[in-house]
Amino acid sequence: MHLHRTTIRLHDTDAAGVVYFASALRLAHEAYEAALDAAGFPLAGVLREGAFALPIVHAEADFLAPLCVGDGVEIRVGLKSLGPNSFALAYRLTADGGRVAATAETVHAVLRLASGKVAPVPAALKKALRALGPP
Amino acid sequence: MHLHRTTIRLHDTDAAGVVYFASALRLAHEAYEAALDAAGFPLAGVLREGAFALPIVHAEADFLAPLCVGDGVEIRVGLKSLGPNSFALAYRLTADGGRVAATAETVHAVLRLASGKVAPVPAALKKALRALGPP
Amino acid sequence: MHLHRTTIRLHDTDAAGVVYFASALRLAHEAYEAALDAAGFPLAGVLREGAFALPIVHAEADFLAPLCVGDGVEIRVGLKSLGPNSFALAYRLTADGGRVAATAETVHAVLRLASGKVAPVPAALKKALRALGPP
Amino acid sequence: MHLHRTTIRLHDTDAAGVVYFASALRLAHEAYEAALDAAGFPLAGVLREGAFALPIVHAEADFLAPLCVGDGVEIRVGLKSLGPNSFALAYRLTADGGRVAATAETVHAVLRLASGKVAPVPAALKKALRALGPP
Repeated sequence: MHLHRTTIRLHDTDAAGVVYFASALRLAHEAYEAALDAAGFPLAGVLREGAFALPIVHAEADFLAPLCVGDGVEIRVGLKSLGPNSFALAYRLTADGGRVAATAETVHAVLRLASGKVAPVPAALKKALRALGPP
Repeated sequence: MHLHRTTIRLHDTDAAGVVYFASALRLAHEAYEAALDAAGFPLAGVLREGAFALPIVHAEADFLAPLCVGDGVEIRVGLKSLGPNSFALAYRLTADGGRVAATAETVHAVLRLASGKVAPVPAALKKALRALGPP
Repeated sequence: MHLHRTTIRLHDTDAAGVVYFASALRLAHEAYEAALDAAGFPLAGVLREGAFALPIVHAEADFLAPLCVGDGVEIRVGLKSLGPNSFALAYRLTADGGRVAATAETVHAVLRLASGKVAPVPAALKKALRALGPP
Repeated sequence: MHLHRTTIRLHDTDAAGVVYFASALRLAHEAYEAALDAAGFPLAGVLREGAFALPIVHAEADFLAPLCVGDGVEIRVGLKSLGPNSFALAYRLTADGGRVAATAETVHAVLRLASGKVAPVPAALKKALRALGPP
């Protein structure tokens, strides 16, 4: 499990005064990127290498409480499941004070770019995901 | 059912070369806003009036095929279900040529802003949602 | 000069209730992309070909009036200047009713990706920019 | 002068593989928000109070070097000028290693919301801006 801290900024919000729903998913993805960095398997390397991609094939979120400009948020990200060709991550966004603002899940496939076909999760990524541990 | 046409722009994409997952949800939401405009119940009026909000309490999407800069996309949005205090919309994003790129769903609660409590779907919104029809 | 019509959507705004400043620049860029499509030199082709990039080296905007959710906006984009290795575009965002909401300018360099060096504006792009005409 | 550290994330980039121009301005604005927080004059309070707004009336940026996913960035934000009814901030985005990626400037007006008219910079904000110091 990785903990990522962030602060809600004006751009994350909309005219309803709170975080735009899709921005909460973006914040979750930023936590996933930070978790991969921490686990020694940065997305930057995946992009640079160009051997495979990790497209999100499913995403979902439950929005439990609004988040406002200036709110401190702790995003917990962990491995929900690890299949042969895909993996699922779970997220929990908790505002300072302990209020859970949202939970989310993303499912990532492994795609070999040369063939355009799904492929086994690379060993180094498997190791990083297992090191991340459950949510 | 409302059909909303758009074109994928550079900002919708990321360094993997395709539409960023959360941007597909944003595009779906834009189709929802256009559908409400067409149904005579614009979100602008809801915001201006300030009596209630329609926060998204759940969202999910399946990403079936990548979308690239310049791709024309048709977004079909329709009413999936209508409850006493909430409603659910379903979306299908189809690229020119007929390839379905993504499907999505959003669930919206009705929140009376004065009380901060859930409230019945206003009659005018009910009418607009029914006029929208199934996806 | 190319005219691009759009409508302000919830995601374009922030908690101050109006369009976020950087989103107005994004809307201008979308008008530029639409203008290139209309001129027969789509950015999608530039990206697919991978021979050169057109990085923005300077951008500026004046924000004259706020834009709100649901506002119809007409974005006028035109060629401001065309140099040997770069070009500048000018934008004007006018809300329905005739109120000018913002003006902007972007300066684009031509970068040959193989060398990482600036390069002459390709002939086909020159032609498209000249066809676009002054703002 | 305030230093704000961030890391480029996938959402900040586009299909050209580098940070989207308007996202660099968004990152600069996040540094401004962090600077106001540090100076004891958080934007959250301004929004909550609803007495005045600080709309950006002008923004500009020079993009000197590309930023990629995973790049660590230090954003320096400082006060460029302080007028009776407005203030200007200057930014410098420096990638790890010392390469300056962008410089930017934003000019903010003070708007009293009750009247819709420009108004003097509030004393507490003046103090926070002066404490911030030159860029």
